[in-house]
Amino acid sequence: MNYAVILAGGVGSRFWPFSRELEPKQFMKIIGESSLLQATIRRLKGVVEPSNIYIVTNNIYFYEVKTQIAKFRIPDKNIILEPQGKNTAPAVGLCARLISGLDKDAVLMVLPSDHYIKNTDNFKRALNKAVACAKRDFLVTIGIKPNAPSTGYGYIKAWEKKEGYLKVEKFLEKPNLNKAKQYFKNKKFFWNSGMFVWKASVLLEEIKAYLPDLYRNLGQIKSVNDIPKVWPAIKAISVDYGIMEHSQRIALIPADFYWTDLGSWDALSEIFPKDKKGNISNGDILNLDSHGVCVFSRGNRFISTIGVNNVVIADTPDALLVCDRDKTQDVKKLVEKLKLLKRKEHQVHLTERRPWGSFTILQEGRGFKIKLIEIAPHKRLSLQQHKKRSEHWVVVSGVAKVVNGEKTSLVNSNQSIYIPKGRKHRLENTTKQPLRIVEVQTGSYFGEDDIERFEDDFKR
Amino acid sequence: MNYAVILAGGVGSRFWPFSRELEPKQFMKIIGESSLLQATIRRLKGVVEPSNIYIVTNNIYFYEVKTQIAKFRIPDKNIILEPQGKNTAPAVGLCARLISGLDKDAVLMVLPSDHYIKNTDNFKRALNKAVACAKRDFLVTIGIKPNAPSTGYGYIKAWEKKEGYLKVEKFLEKPNLNKAKQYFKNKKFFWNSGMFVWKASVLLEEIKAYLPDLYRNLGQIKSVNDIPKVWPAIKAISVDYGIMEHSQRIALIPADFYWTDLGSWDALSEIFPKDKKGNISNGDILNLDSHGVCVFSRGNRFISTIGVNNVVIADTPDALLVCDRDKTQDVKKLVEKLKLLKRKEHQVHLTERRPWGSFTILQEGRGFKIKLIEIAPHKRLSLQQHKKRSEHWVVVSGVAKVVNGEKTSLVNSNQSIYIPKGRKHRLENTTKQPLRIVEVQTGSYFGEDDIERFEDDFKR
Repeated sequence: MNYAVILAGGVGSRFWPFSRELEPKQFMKIIGESSLLQATIRRLKGVVEPSNIYIVTNNIYFYEVKTQIAKFRIPDKNIILEPQGKNTAPAVGLCARLISGLDKDAVLMVLPSDHYIKNTDNFKRALNKAVACAKRDFLVTIGIKPNAPSTGYGYIKAWEKKEGYLKVEKFLEKPNLNKAKQYFKNKKFFWNSGMFVWKASVLLEEIKAYLPDLYRNLGQIKSVNDIPKVWPAIKAISVDYGIMEHSQRIALIPADFYWTDLGSWDALSEIFPKDKKGNISNGDILNLDSHGVCVFSRGNRFISTIGVNNVVIADTPDALLVCDRDKTQDVKKLVEKLKLLKRKEHQVHLTERRPWGSFTILQEGRGFKIKLIEIAPHKRLSLQQHKKRSEHWVVVSGVAKVVNGEKTSLVNSNQSIYIPKGRKHRLENTTKQPLRIVEVQTGSYFGEDDIERFEDDFKR
Repeated sequence: MNYAVILAGGVGSRFWPFSRELEPKQFMKIIGESSLLQATIRRLKGVVEPSNIYIVTNNIYFYEVKTQIAKFRIPDKNIILEPQGKNTAPAVGLCARLISGLDKDAVLMVLPSDHYIKNTDNFKRALNKAVACAKRDFLVTIGIKPNAPSTGYGYIKAWEKKEGYLKVEKFLEKPNLNKAKQYFKNKKFFWNSGMFVWKASVLLEEIKAYLPDLYRNLGQIKSVNDIPKVWPAIKAISVDYGIMEHSQRIALIPADFYWTDLGSWDALSEIFPKDKKGNISNGDILNLDSHGVCVFSRGNRFISTIGVNNVVIADTPDALLVCDRDKTQDVKKLVEKLKLLKRKEHQVHLTERRPWGSFTILQEGRGFKIKLIEIAPHKRLSLQQHKKRSEHWVVVSGVAKVVNGEKTSLVNSNQSIYIPKGRKHRLENTTKQPLRIVEVQTGSYFGEDDIERFEDDFKR
C-alpha cells in the first residue's frame, strides 16, 4: 500500500515575525484559508487514503497538528512525535520502521509540510510516476526544473534517461550566483525538492548500509512508546547528506509544476500578485512612490510607505520587521539573536494557541493584565487556581460554564463573573458555538507559571 | 510691559503618524518630558511673567492647552481661541487688539509653539535685544544664522548694520538647493524663524496700512466673546506675506542659537543621538546591517531592520510609516490622502485625550469593544447613557465613584460594576490618585455618538 509521510517538525524561523518557535511556518496560513500543512494534505486527495497519511512532528506541536488535521479524518495515532528534532534521516527512518511493521511492502511518499506547489495535477502525475519507480526498489527523488538561477536551493545533476526515470549523477550544494547561472542554462540540473518516494524496506536497507548507528537505534523502537528513550542518543543528520549522496539506487523523476520551498520572505513574495510598481499589499496598505515593496500585515494596523524600494515589511501586533529584499536570508540570524537575548518575540505571538483554543494579551499594566480568551466548542481549560491574581470574566459571545469554588454556573453573553485569587475554577464551552470572554486579571503577578492545575483534559 | 504670544493652533501633519489632527506637533513630547508647547513656555522663564503669556489656539485644543499649561500658572483667560485657523496675521492681530486694550504700550513677543531651540541663554539674549529694538517702533524679526544650505526654510537678506539691528533688504521664499547653497555661503542671509517682536500698537498700524480688511474686522472685536461672530469673514494670510514683506519698519536681530522648526521627520532626526552607523533608535529596536535608519516608536512593539538604509520608521499602535529620509516632506501629501479617504488614522490615536483624562481602544470585535480608561484626579465624565451598549467596568487602580441609575457607590480596585444599556451613569475620580478602569462594552453599536449627555463639566 501507499503511504504519505509528512515532515512537520521544523521550527522555520525565516518567516519571523509571522512564524514563531511555537507557531512555525507549516502551521501558518500563507495563502488562502489552509495552512501549508493542510494544503500538503489536501494535495494528496485521490493519491493516498487519509488513514495512510502520517505526520512526523515535534512533541510541542501535537495539539496544533491534531487541530489542523481534524477535518481530514487522519487518525491521531498517525501523528508521530519526536521529543527533539534530529533532522530528516531519523524522522524518515522512524516512519519506515513503524509503518513497515504494519505493512512490509509499504511505499512511502516523503513530503515536506511547508512548501508551496501550484498545478496539483502535475504534482500528482509526478508522484504516481515516482511510486511506480520506487516499486522497482529505487530511492526516488523528485527534481524540479529550475525557472530561475536560484542560489537558495541544492541541485541534482541527472541526465541519463533510463526506463521511466533519470539516473542521478550527483547532488550539489547551494551554488553561488555564477554557478547557479551555469546550472540554469544546462538542462541536466534540477532543484532538490526534498520530496522522496521509496519502499520502507529499501530505505531501511540503505540506512543499514550508510547510517548503521541510526539503524541500530531504530531497531530498538518496537512501538511509539519506545521513541522517548531512544531518541536522545540519535545523531541529527539529513537524508540527503546521510543517504542520498551515497546510495547507488537513486532515481530522479523530473517534475514541471511550480514549486517553491518558501525559504524566505523574498521567496514568498514570488507567489503574491503585485501592482504596476511591483508592490505587494497584503493588508491595509498605502504606498506613495514606492517600488518593489512587499508588505505583509498580521494585525489591524494601517501601513504606509513613501519612496521606499525593494523592502519587505512584515508586521505583527508585537513585532515589526523591515528588511531589504536581498537580505531576507538574514532573518534567521536575527531570530538567533532574539533567542540569545531571551526575548519572547522569537517564541510566541501575543495570541497564543492552546489545545482548548487561544488567548490574546491585549494590555499589561501595573497591577493588571487583560486577555481576550477564545474557547473552542466542547473544550475546557484545566481546573486550576492562582496564588497571585484574581480574575474578572465578561462573556462577550457564547455561553460559559464556570466552576467557581463549590459553585457551577452558566454565564451568558453580557454577563460577568469574579474569581478571587486562591479559588479553584474552570472555564468550559459546552456549546457548538465559540465562546469568547474578556479576562481582566488584577493582582501582583501575571506569569503563566502561576497556574496550579488539579485536572486537565490535555495532561499538562 | 512685555507679553508673549505663543501660536499653538497648527495642525502640523508632518509628524504623522505620531501627530494627528487632534494631537498636533506642539502638544507632543518630542524630546524629554515636556511637550514642545511646554518647552516654549519654559524658555520664557525670567523674560515674561506667566500672567503675561498668551496662547492662541484652535477651539478644539482648549482642554489640551489648559491641561498642558496647568503647571505654569498661566490664567485660562490667556488662552485665546480661534474658531477656525486663519494663518498667522489674523492670530497676531487679534492678540495685539486684545492686549493693547489692556496695556496700550504692550510689547509682544510672537513665538511659534512647535520649534526646537538649544542654548536657551542665547535665545533669551536675542529676545531681549529684539525687545529693545521693538520699543523703538520696529517690527523685529529674529533671523537665524544658517548652519546648512537648507531648502526647508524661507530666508531673509539683511546686512546693513544699524544701531542695534540689521536693516532687512528682502524676504525670500524657500529656495532650491542651488540657491540655498549660494545663500549659505553669503553672510547676508538668515533663516526666517517666524519669531517676531513688536509693539501691539505698531503692529496694528501696519495691519491698518497693509491689511485694511483685517484691521476693520479686528476693530469689531471688543472682547473674546466677539471672536466667533467676526472670525468666519476673515481672510487667511500669513504675517510674513501680509505685513513683513511690505512694511518699511522691519529690523532683524541675528541669533546664534541652534534652532529648527522640526518641519519633518528628517529635521527631527537631526537632534537625536545616532550610533556609529548613523541609526537612531528611539524605542525597542534591533538593527542588523542597517545605516541611517531612524526609528521612532510610540507603543510597546519590538522593531527590527535588516540591511535597510536611509529610512524613517515611525510606529504607533494603529499606524506605521516607513519613509525614505529624502521624502519626509511628502508625509503631508499622505495625510491629505488619508483625509480624503476619511480614515480615522489622520485624526485620532487609539489613545484619545479627553478633558477628564483619556481612553485607549484595546480591541473591537463582533459584539464587544474593550477600552482602558484613565480619569485624572478630581475629574469626572458627563452624566450619560447609551442606547445600544451595556458597560462592564473593572477598576484596576484607584477608586471610582459611580452613579448607576438611582444609586451612587464607590468601586475599589479589583471590584467591578455593571451598567446596563439605557441606564444613566457617571464615572468620577474624587481622589488625588489617577483612576484606571477596564471597560468591556457589549452590544450592537459602539460609536462615540451613542452618548446622550445630561450634565457635563466640560459643556459638551
